Amino acid sequence: MVGIIMGSDSDLPIMKQAGEILSELGVEFELTIVSAHRTPERMFDYAKSAKERGLKIIIAGAGGAAHLPGMVASLTTLPVIGVPIKSSNSVDGWDSILSILQMPNGIPVATVALNGAKNAGLLAARMIGSFDEKISSNLTKYHIKMKGEVEAKIQKVKGEFRNEFD
Amino acid sequence: MVGIIMGSDSDLPIMKQAGEILSELGVEFELTIVSAHRTPERMFDYAKSAKERGLKIIIAGAGGAAHLPGMVASLTTLPVIGVPIKSSNSVDGWDSILSILQMPNGIPVATVALNGAKNAGLLAARMIGSFDEKISSNLTKYHIKMKGEVEAKIQKVKGEFRNEFD
Amino acid sequence: MVGIIMGSDSDLPIMKQAGEILSELGVEFELTIVSAHRTPERMFDYAKSAKERGLKIIIAGAGGAAHLPGMVASLTTLPVIGVPIKSSNSVDGWDSILSILQMPNGIPVATVALNGAKNAGLLAARMIGSFDEKISSNLTKYHIKMKGEVEAKIQKVKGEFRNEFD
Amino acid sequence: MVGIIMGSDSDLPIMKQAGEILSELGVEFELTIVSAHRTPERMFDYAKSAKERGLKIIIAGAGGAAHLPGMVASLTTLPVIGVPIKSSNSVDGWDSILSILQMPNGIPVATVALNGAKNAGLLAARMIGSFDEKISSNLTKYHIKMKGEVEAKIQKVKGEFRNEFD
Amino acid sequence: MVGIIMGSDSDLPIMKQAGEILSELGVEFELTIVSAHRTPERMFDYAKSAKERGLKIIIAGAGGAAHLPGMVASLTTLPVIGVPIKSSNSVDGWDSILSILQMPNGIPVATVALNGAKNAGLLAARMIGSFDEKISSNLTKYHIKMKGEVEAKIQKVKGEFRNEFD
Amino acid sequence: MVGIIMGSDSDLPIMKQAGEILSELGVEFELTIVSAHRTPERMFDYAKSAKERGLKIIIAGAGGAAHLPGMVASLTTLPVIGVPIKSSNSVDGWDSILSILQMPNGIPVATVALNGAKNAGLLAARMIGSFDEKISSNLTKYHIKMKGEVEAKIQKVKGEFRNEFD
Amino acid sequence: MVGIIMGSDSDLPIMKQAGEILSELGVEFELTIVSAHRTPERMFDYAKSAKERGLKIIIAGAGGAAHLPGMVASLTTLPVIGVPIKSSNSVDGWDSILSILQMPNGIPVATVALNGAKNAGLLAARMIGSFDEKISSNLTKYHIKMKGEVEAKIQKVKGEFRNEFD
Amino acid sequence: MVGIIMGSDSDLPIMKQAGEILSELGVEFELTIVSAHRTPERMFDYAKSAKERGLKIIIAGAGGAAHLPGMVASLTTLPVIGVPIKSSNSVDGWDSILSILQMPNGIPVATVALNGAKNAGLLAARMIGSFDEKISSNLTKYHIKMKGEVEAKIQKVKGEFRNEFD
Repeated sequence: MVGIIMGSDSDLPIMKQAGEILSELGVEFELTIVSAHRTPERMFDYAKSAKERGLKIIIAGAGGAAHLPGMVASLTTLPVIGVPIKSSNSVDGWDSILSILQMPNGIPVATVALNGAKNAGLLAARMIGSFDEKISSNLTKYHIKMKGEVEAKIQKVKGEFRNEFD
Repeated sequence: MVGIIMGSDSDLPIMKQAGEILSELGVEFELTIVSAHRTPERMFDYAKSAKERGLKIIIAGAGGAAHLPGMVASLTTLPVIGVPIKSSNSVDGWDSILSILQMPNGIPVATVALNGAKNAGLLAARMIGSFDEKISSNLTKYHIKMKGEVEAKIQKVKGEFRNEFD
Repeated sequence: MVGIIMGSDSDLPIMKQAGEILSELGVEFELTIVSAHRTPERMFDYAKSAKERGLKIIIAGAGGAAHLPGMVASLTTLPVIGVPIKSSNSVDGWDSILSILQMPNGIPVATVALNGAKNAGLLAARMIGSFDEKISSNLTKYHIKMKGEVEAKIQKVKGEFRNEFD
Repeated sequence: MVGIIMGSDSDLPIMKQAGEILSELGVEFELTIVSAHRTPERMFDYAKSAKERGLKIIIAGAGGAAHLPGMVASLTTLPVIGVPIKSSNSVDGWDSILSILQMPNGIPVATVALNGAKNAGLLAARMIGSFDEKISSNLTKYHIKMKGEVEAKIQKVKGEFRNEFD
Repeated sequence: MVGIIMGSDSDLPIMKQAGEILSELGVEFELTIVSAHRTPERMFDYAKSAKERGLKIIIAGAGGAAHLPGMVASLTTLPVIGVPIKSSNSVDGWDSILSILQMPNGIPVATVALNGAKNAGLLAARMIGSFDEKISSNLTKYHIKMKGEVEAKIQKVKGEFRNEFD
Repeated sequence: MVGIIMGSDSDLPIMKQAGEILSELGVEFELTIVSAHRTPERMFDYAKSAKERGLKIIIAGAGGAAHLPGMVASLTTLPVIGVPIKSSNSVDGWDSILSILQMPNGIPVATVALNGAKNAGLLAARMIGSFDEKISSNLTKYHIKMKGEVEAKIQKVKGEFRNEFD
Repeated sequence: MVGIIMGSDSDLPIMKQAGEILSELGVEFELTIVSAHRTPERMFDYAKSAKERGLKIIIAGAGGAAHLPGMVASLTTLPVIGVPIKSSNSVDGWDSILSILQMPNGIPVATVALNGAKNAGLLAARMIGSFDEKISSNLTKYHIKMKGEVEAKIQKVKGEFRNEFD
Repeated sequence: MVGIIMGSDSDLPIMKQAGEILSELGVEFELTIVSAHRTPERMFDYAKSAKERGLKIIIAGAGGAAHLPGMVASLTTLPVIGVPIKSSNSVDGWDSILSILQMPNGIPVATVALNGAKNAGLLAARMIGSFDEKISSNLTKYHIKMKGEVEAKIQKVKGEFRNEFD
């Protein structure tokens, strides 16, 4: 089970993409709001109980001075995936990226691209897939599907432009 | 009383400058290490007990993904002054600056310049000086002293370069 | 009493948020326009008379090459809170942030996030709350209110997504 | 088993820190050089055979236009941890960070801080620890050890500065 | 013959500008989709066969962590022109620029401006023009045409503003 | 007489603001298009003949890799004012700013803010005003007018917000 | 007469280069220290009296949150040349550049390159040269001298490398 | 024949690397100094005569506001390779990169990495290799040599670290 948390419901349109891809790949998840700054005790409780509640991975998204992923990582030994979000109060996303990515030695956060919640879900699935052949096989199918989508676009573009490669 | 905290003893050469200027201005302080990521429970206890222990202001310095000032601010209603530190693992200081400065609405951090611990001390003294005439008067003397130092430099440079203003 | 000033009336939609939160927290304020570059004498008079007029804190907002907060801080010993504003002539807000934040040693400015006028008001209230139990208590109520708002969102999201934590 | 690869032996002083922490935590690893640009076929072979060779996680470090982590991630379904390295030809590390972090949807890379190879090792251990109680327990001990180190520093600083908290 | 490739059909509105200018200058081209991350084997095959298929130059456009131009350059000895694209998942274009431009010694990519596909086409024509007098002559005509367009604008502006130079 | 030039007619909406303020201040100007890259010979002729044609100052605006101001400055000894323009092909304006501002020792360009054509006109008027009392007096009136505009805004805001200063 | 001012004597090694080139070109100057933040009244007096004291141009250098050039420009109608200085408390020079360059409409500062005091002197000489044939002629000689220096280097390099152009 | 030019002899330690690799690959070159700003007429003559003098490609390196590559490209139809140089007056190299890379539509410059003169030479060789089988074959050998160097490093590292892949 993967736990998905975010600092605010304004992050939900981005963060639910993590849940959608996990569902597609057959990984269970739960999702809720945990604000590092507005509900710090809740963040403590969520992070500290995560392992015993059966979570394997936590995906945490936040914008601006984004402390949620790093603080959660300091309160658990589970792998934490951080999603920098370009929120309305963000300076072009740089604040979100740097305050999640640049963790000091000792407490890692697995950071993905700005607004990259889908990739956070895929990364969680890869982590599980290393120990669960079913999920690994679903990931392989997903890669094949992606190639198929590119192939379809190749054919479409071929109708418009000369292409001697294919 | 002002509480000065920092994420690591490697920040001490910078952060003790806050204490030195507070001493010069007649403001009492205490100083210790509180790591947001390595000692999160200590951070909780420090921040939550700060007001009842008689602290009026907290100065918190940290580098890289610097979560200490913002997290402390979320756990107390005291004013928190954040000092971004250009630590060895910092990307030119931008990570420290942005992860302290760009706090979301609701939880403010009074951010000073990169490595600006001396100004953090002066800012704390100004906050106290608004309610304590003795400290305010010390700040006025400090401003006069600064002008005197500039005046001395003006005279020194005057020996070398034409100056029809003075 | 808190004095709120800004370089131009185009900053008013942002800067009045400082006044609104101060009102909510029971802190009196006044608000006017003081341009460092267009009315430098007015800035001098405002800053120099602020303390004797009874102001405890000055909140100053400006965009682009934002000199107002730092210059005011050089002309008073009151604490000055600077609000960088992403004005139309700003390079993505970086100019406003850096020209307020990076003050030299001796003259501090308490800088908040880009467009963070609400946090400037909250920071001023914290400064007063350190010496005024009524305001401190109002801040505590504000924190409880913020948690309540998050709680409501948690419940709303719970209707849509699995959540075994709550 | 964790596979550690890097673009050049000039990255070894940084990247071997991943191996050292893995050893300390009881996780086996192998380490070699795989250059995306100078040995692309080797990169293909390494990535494509990784899963069947028994690797569970790949840690890939590179500097400048750092394509190794992302390309490896496109050739395997194992989780790939990317370490941006501030190499001599890097523009202050920004190129390494952005060319590893900003992967398109579909192919995630778990990015850690600039030169953050130690955290890459810790992240790999966390991934394994989610499925291996021995490693999880080693991580818990590591957290306790880190707290102990902070505690020692607290005591040392206490000898120099007033501290009424401890 | 010039080969134009791009990571996704969302890059087509930009990248087809390379083809349009090549046509205008009398240079043949083919155009298709090759995704470094979704179709890495296709990328290998495309790059490795390019020379024997008669391509003289490859133009490759990509956004975000843009690995296509650099990887193609590592798999062929043909000149590769990289077009950084400001795609939806790009951090203001910086990621695309740096991950194409900052190639390590040994594997060059000829990088053009952000979204500069037209210039990529012109650059390819210049490369060919060095060895083909017809194309060189077409480029000279193109320069004359550009001057003519400026001249027309000069005349238009002259109707509105005093101009004693012309 | 001031010469205003720009790289393209797309810069005209910005650059004509320089002319408007010069007119308001009683300074004559001419305005035309000179493209460093599309009409380099014209740029040479314009710059080389500027002094003998009676120009006192040249204002040059350009976007992206903006070479016009610096190249003109290398071809004349007149003061050249550079206006960085945030054109459609600009990376947030940074390219325009840096390629105008960062001139090597020997060839200065007086750079103004991004899109700051109005200030370029004012700067030209200041240069002339140092040697022409009429223009200097017009500038003084302009400053008084600006203060008057601020004063009107102060009164307007005073109707809405408490203001004990005025 | 040109007035050269700077915020601190630590800026002198850079700023005296402005004086040296002015001397070489036959332009008189005076030089002193004026700190916007430590001696704001001095700054007011210096700027307000500059014109009647006979100054034609003011060159002002400062680092970090560099308010001196812009504030001086708001207090005089003389042209003000700003020199951003990469001082020890600067974030790679960006703060100095942006807080001098990005002046709001109405108050221009002629900004030169980071640490570009020599170019500030040359720019002042160009401004004077527009109205003083002697200085203009000295500038022309300076350009010839620069070309001569390049010519000497061309000859030196020609001894080492094939050169069929010269 | 390739022409290598640079703005100053201080760029020679970087720029001569272009010549060295060209020699190694059997491509003739000439090398001299051409300053866009100090010798603009020389730049005109060099660029305008390049094609008839038999040059096939021009490599131009410059730092700071680097106008040489773009201006040369506007004066010839030969392909121009631009090398951004991190000179002493550069803001971390960003100015050099952006003022070479961000050319407007119509005039392309093939930009390589910061200080990437070696890659500029390799790129020139690739351009020639597309029309000259001997040079193409030399490039292939160079790629094999690079792989051999990596192979040697792999063996060396294998002595120190477990490696089950090779």
